[in-house]
Amino acid sequence: MNEEITSDALKSFFRKDLFAEFVGIELLEAGDGRATARLKLRDHHRNVLGLAHGGAIFTLADLAFAAAVNSRGRAAVAIHCSISYLKAVQGDLLLAEAEEVSCGPKIAAYSIRITDDSGEMISLFEGMAYRKGER
Amino acid sequence: MNEEITSDALKSFFRKDLFAEFVGIELLEAGDGRATARLKLRDHHRNVLGLAHGGAIFTLADLAFAAAVNSRGRAAVAIHCSISYLKAVQGDLLLAEAEEVSCGPKIAAYSIRITDDSGEMISLFEGMAYRKGER
Amino acid sequence: MNEEITSDALKSFFRKDLFAEFVGIELLEAGDGRATARLKLRDHHRNVLGLAHGGAIFTLADLAFAAAVNSRGRAAVAIHCSISYLKAVQGDLLLAEAEEVSCGPKIAAYSIRITDDSGEMISLFEGMAYRKGER
Amino acid sequence: MNEEITSDALKSFFRKDLFAEFVGIELLEAGDGRATARLKLRDHHRNVLGLAHGGAIFTLADLAFAAAVNSRGRAAVAIHCSISYLKAVQGDLLLAEAEEVSCGPKIAAYSIRITDDSGEMISLFEGMAYRKGER
Repeated sequence: MNEEITSDALKSFFRKDLFAEFVGIELLEAGDGRATARLKLRDHHRNVLGLAHGGAIFTLADLAFAAAVNSRGRAAVAIHCSISYLKAVQGDLLLAEAEEVSCGPKIAAYSIRITDDSGEMISLFEGMAYRKGER
Repeated sequence: MNEEITSDALKSFFRKDLFAEFVGIELLEAGDGRATARLKLRDHHRNVLGLAHGGAIFTLADLAFAAAVNSRGRAAVAIHCSISYLKAVQGDLLLAEAEEVSCGPKIAAYSIRITDDSGEMISLFEGMAYRKGER
Repeated sequence: MNEEITSDALKSFFRKDLFAEFVGIELLEAGDGRATARLKLRDHHRNVLGLAHGGAIFTLADLAFAAAVNSRGRAAVAIHCSISYLKAVQGDLLLAEAEEVSCGPKIAAYSIRITDDSGEMISLFEGMAYRKGER
Repeated sequence: MNEEITSDALKSFFRKDLFAEFVGIELLEAGDGRATARLKLRDHHRNVLGLAHGGAIFTLADLAFAAAVNSRGRAAVAIHCSISYLKAVQGDLLLAEAEEVSCGPKIAAYSIRITDDSGEMISLFEGMAYRKGER
């Protein structure tokens, strides 16, 4: 029996993520422990210095993380996330790509690389989730 | 010469934090390495499970962190942040209180406790910043 | 029924922590979600710069973390730990004090402050554990 | 002018890391923002459960991190490290491989994967360093 969920089902499910929707984040694809999300930066994503806001970058990565871990077919909740800010953003398009580090019966871990228009990694996000019993 | 900045000046400065404004976060007070921020939860702060979104909680804590470190009178940028999600939120009001862990010439660290209506800590955020030379 | 374990029982139990013993770490007291451990710095705890080694500081904090979480009466394993290095160590005695942040049925979190002879916090350690079913 | 340092020079330099030496960690190679270190597990590396101790795994990864960042030709100090424990160790040989995430003028970040005999990643370590002016 396949516990995996299709990319379309995941995209449809995450359309109910009201905060990600409000921020303007788009889930491009998800499945098999992976996911990719995108954010087109606008004025309201800026901080006091006019740069991409840490909270917006975090939320982008968080959606890719949530989609990747939920693609494994069981409800999961984030328990710990960290983000390293590596360099200033170039351009106005951010991409977050989640990759599975480990998926155990209870605990799963993901790395999410956030890149900008120049293709350089601007932030690295690490997420750990607790997987519940139910699907 | 006092490098500290008053709470009013900080509040005025962070009104230019467009993302925090967009999300609906209010800086209540800041100064002397501390800061308090508040978020009234609305529908658009929810995730797929209808709970307070991790990205919204992070952004709330991030504003308290930014205000606390910038109260020390020098421009500072976040280099690493982490957040632990400890329990489900009760009610619809979140408070983030930033406390200084350490403020060195280059690196500063802050702990931000996020509590809900019940007064219980629901998340713990740790932020590390790099302090630049200029004020 | 009391699930708590006495400080003497915990100290006796952690004498079987062979690595902590090898490094020279002493568990001073533990119980009720708290613990204190001590390390007297010797030459073999130094790094290439002659300073207290990050791995030795981490191991000291880790013992306080393990004792604090295990004082809650259920076997627990660390899933994520982080450490911030805040300032250079003064003197040759380090103390790690673990305090409970949160203790849920499955996930528990602790903050461990490491101080030196001068009483200043030199490092901050955050530990998250997964609590198993058995005692 | 090449600021890089050869693998032999780094190995010779890190022989002065007294704690890593005491623990029994061997630096296999280092250079160009990368490094590999090894630990043969013995009884004194165990915790109360008889498993590889988190402090020993951390110290192994920390040496690979230090060698990788110092290969960039400037003195660097760790400011923040985190470690995720992903699965129980198989066998008695641990390998830590450090890879550069980012190396800016002041802040550098590394990911260190720790694998066991089975070749599976058992822990993931993330290290951030502050690079000083002098070589």
